[in-house]
Amino acid sequence: MTFPVPQALRDYAQLAEPQLAAFLDAKGAALRGLPVDLSRAYAALRDYVLRGGKRLRGALVLLGHQAAGGRREDVLRPSLGVELLHAYLLIHDDFMDRDEVRRGGPTLHVTFAGAFRSGRAGPGGGPDSGAAQSPGGAAAVHLGGSLAILAGSLCEAWALELVLEAQVAPARALAAARHLAPALADVTVGQMLDLAAPQGPELPPAGVLRIEQLKTGSYTFELPLLLGALLAGASPELLAALRAYALPLGQAFQIADDLLGVFGAPEVTGKSSANDLREGKRTLLIARALERASPSDAAALRGGLGKPDMSDAEAEALRAILRRSGAEQAARKEAEQLCGEATRALEGGPIPATVAAELRAIADYTIRRTL
Amino acid sequence: MTFPVPQALRDYAQLAEPQLAAFLDAKGAALRGLPVDLSRAYAALRDYVLRGGKRLRGALVLLGHQAAGGRREDVLRPSLGVELLHAYLLIHDDFMDRDEVRRGGPTLHVTFAGAFRSGRAGPGGGPDSGAAQSPGGAAAVHLGGSLAILAGSLCEAWALELVLEAQVAPARALAAARHLAPALADVTVGQMLDLAAPQGPELPPAGVLRIEQLKTGSYTFELPLLLGALLAGASPELLAALRAYALPLGQAFQIADDLLGVFGAPEVTGKSSANDLREGKRTLLIARALERASPSDAAALRGGLGKPDMSDAEAEALRAILRRSGAEQAARKEAEQLCGEATRALEGGPIPATVAAELRAIADYTIRRTL
Repeated sequence: MTFPVPQALRDYAQLAEPQLAAFLDAKGAALRGLPVDLSRAYAALRDYVLRGGKRLRGALVLLGHQAAGGRREDVLRPSLGVELLHAYLLIHDDFMDRDEVRRGGPTLHVTFAGAFRSGRAGPGGGPDSGAAQSPGGAAAVHLGGSLAILAGSLCEAWALELVLEAQVAPARALAAARHLAPALADVTVGQMLDLAAPQGPELPPAGVLRIEQLKTGSYTFELPLLLGALLAGASPELLAALRAYALPLGQAFQIADDLLGVFGAPEVTGKSSANDLREGKRTLLIARALERASPSDAAALRGGLGKPDMSDAEAEALRAILRRSGAEQAARKEAEQLCGEATRALEGGPIPATVAAELRAIADYTIRRTL
Repeated sequence: MTFPVPQALRDYAQLAEPQLAAFLDAKGAALRGLPVDLSRAYAALRDYVLRGGKRLRGALVLLGHQAAGGRREDVLRPSLGVELLHAYLLIHDDFMDRDEVRRGGPTLHVTFAGAFRSGRAGPGGGPDSGAAQSPGGAAAVHLGGSLAILAGSLCEAWALELVLEAQVAPARALAAARHLAPALADVTVGQMLDLAAPQGPELPPAGVLRIEQLKTGSYTFELPLLLGALLAGASPELLAALRAYALPLGQAFQIADDLLGVFGAPEVTGKSSANDLREGKRTLLIARALERASPSDAAALRGGLGKPDMSDAEAEALRAILRRSGAEQAARKEAEQLCGEATRALEGGPIPATVAAELRAIADYTIRRTL
């Protein structure tokens, strides 16, 4: 079974990519003439944002808007904003998780720290701008991390700017922004829980699920769809229908992502498939494996997770435990069921048939193809 | 000459402080029942936000609103949002500058890292929640820093929420939010420049001034005043008059802050007066001293700045250079002049006399009392 990229995603990417590049170029031009040369840092940020992604979230903004009868051109810029919001969260996550690779390239904090360490005048560069002092290892790492945090926050500020400048009635733009603010808080709390969890007692699957819901569950599908719909003045019924599609799909997406993080090929995910195991991430997959595995397997899994210097063979042994315990298969099945639940919510409700068809294709593409 | 706390500031603090505490308590209550106990982390954040500050920015939101004929109760919550915005920026700054003390207490990243290092279950705590594993020094510092960044971002999300829920016409709330987004971007760029500057060639005073303007100049006076005014549908003339007051005052404030950072008593500033010198901060004060000092003094200043283990005697020697060069006196004079410029902008324009009187008192209080 093959899953071609859905038309809505292809169309959106083709439309949005040059506009996103143009937006970033305009912002970059405004940075010229500042007293410190940030051009290299900015180029790295631009590359990071444009490097990749399916532009799923931006496309969902357009579909949510279309579902509520809005015109595509009115939400194009807000949809770019949602893509930048995603970049913001990824950049901060990369730093906090100490990830070195994202979308097949270096993460921003790694790029920045490297530039500072090499004394290539850090963020600016160029042959004439010899650094006054080149910070040592730890200082360069801190400086690079700080600059990455700021680059992420800059994407967030731009995201807000783009959402607010939607060419719709003020009440609609305001409703969308009012939906955005608490979603930002939820994602932040989810990330706090995620970081703090490994320091506390082992979480049961329900606890892990709740954290994943807060951290990523809502912002991948629900936030963009509802943002787009609110910008077109959607009815409460339509918003409810979009939620009924988005919520199970968000969960399915997270489960699929957990699976990819452990079993996915690096050429698909853009990062090593041992990363999540090396970090000792307490995903739902892991929590369920610990519940289902034999005592000796559970002990081996507990003992093996989170070793920064884990060998590929050790990682493979942990994967075998995930398979043996049945947690892998159960996760695949659950994601499949949630995806089915999501697509059934599209039927017979207030979502127009053309939009429903696109949303169905997107669900299949983003979940089933990764299983 | 004494400068009593202006009535508008006292009134505002009395009004806002319990409301800010109530807001934080409500948000804290929503965090209970989550799968990881964040209660200690949250208590530290609450303490940090409530620990201090003059609540200058929140009071200015009310005055801007009042200047445009708005009702105080309509912007009380947005004004709390601006105070939280300030907390967000301070928390991130503390981390990036590695400051350990703020407002007479520990900074958040220090508190969090300490909790993780001691193995007291990090952010939650309590006798029953023994940590699964207590991270070592560097890991605890990274985790504590990451959690502080998130706590700051949470304040930012709440700030946005509070500004957007202003009880005014949607077009006015939207106009205020549209003013906020680019201001956030400016502050972020200013901080990027500030962090990157020490890695590049020495900046002339004009370059330092530009960075300070971006980083703090606009958000202390201009942002809150204009936000309040926009929430009441202010005329372009009124907005211009408020800007004419806010811009020079923002500069004066920054100069006064530079002076406080080097010459201020720790019991006034809440942090060691050698901090800025130890960090080697390139303030306008320093840039001007380097321009004015004798070659040997300039060399001593260049060589002495930025030593993390600077002794009190070494710091005092650098202060003597700032005095000898005339930079200190020039800075005091300039701040005084800018403050005068700001208060003259209040006269005879569209700002109502009662508001103008409060703004004049605030200018004197925040600038002259610190000189």
